[in-house]
Amino acid sequence: MAFTIYDASIPMMVRMLQNLSSILDKAAAHAAAKGIQPATMIESSLAPDMFNLARQVQSAADAAKAGAARLSGEVPPSHADTETTFDELKGRIAKVIAYVESFTPEQINAGGERSITIPARGEPHVFKNGGDYLTQFLIPNFFFHVTTAYGLVRQQGVEIGKMTYLTGV
Amino acid sequence: MAFTIYDASIPMMVRMLQNLSSILDKAAAHAAAKGIQPATMIESSLAPDMFNLARQVQSAADAAKAGAARLSGEVPPSHADTETTFDELKGRIAKVIAYVESFTPEQINAGGERSITIPARGEPHVFKNGGDYLTQFLIPNFFFHVTTAYGLVRQQGVEIGKMTYLTGV
Repeated sequence: MAFTIYDASIPMMVRMLQNLSSILDKAAAHAAAKGIQPATMIESSLAPDMFNLARQVQSAADAAKAGAARLSGEVPPSHADTETTFDELKGRIAKVIAYVESFTPEQINAGGERSITIPARGEPHVFKNGGDYLTQFLIPNFFFHVTTAYGLVRQQGVEIGKMTYLTGV
Repeated sequence: MAFTIYDASIPMMVRMLQNLSSILDKAAAHAAAKGIQPATMIESSLAPDMFNLARQVQSAADAAKAGAARLSGEVPPSHADTETTFDELKGRIAKVIAYVESFTPEQINAGGERSITIPARGEPHVFKNGGDYLTQFLIPNFFFHVTTAYGLVRQQGVEIGKMTYLTGV
């Protein structure tokens, strides 16, 4: 059974986005139980000049959305970064899960045969094919934001562990 | 050109381990420039009950090593968690890069046709094939430790950005 670019991207990103949604559920429950303002957690960051939790979640969702769009050659829907509550952030994730699940393996795998260009500071960066784009940018970038969101929530005292990150439980 | 389990794993993990080694270089230079004891950074963690920087680096290296071993069906070399300096941690990474680069694509791709079992709390967990193991455990787990190590170093004030994480620069 052949392993494809689709197999290495869409189902994994969907699972991790679902787990991220569970992490936000646990963060919201923690805030409610401890009398913490949700905004305090949503606006927290690991360093003063790093993205806060909201931006990390938005960036994880955008990474998955852009990945499916670039691999398939489609134009992704635009999502404004206006979420300020846990429910709104979960809604952003749900929209992106529905979007990336709307693609067939054939649509995504078509990106394996094309070069893919992404904007970058200065010159746009060209990956010679979808596999290079996937492994040199999409996957590392996606996990950067998911893991940083996890670390932020964890640092805020929410009782989650690596199993939450891996399985949502 | 077919995309394989090898393509989705070994070259990406090697690149990220090289970038992690660069992050440690920058951390060491920062400590030297600011008169910070390296141990302070190496023993820092995002939360009191999370792994410190040394354990995150060791865990990232172990994840890559175990991934190559499980996919290929080989027994990995044992590496004791004894590193206490930036140079020793970089040495640990270098050993694992050499190990995972010693496999051919054919050896790694053979894991796509077999079930793969990993130890877990309670019952061992069985993935029905190497693709499931790769996308449901190996890749998420590997990036968890690389990104957390990055976040720790970043939180300690070292001037690194996502480009360092993505490209080592």
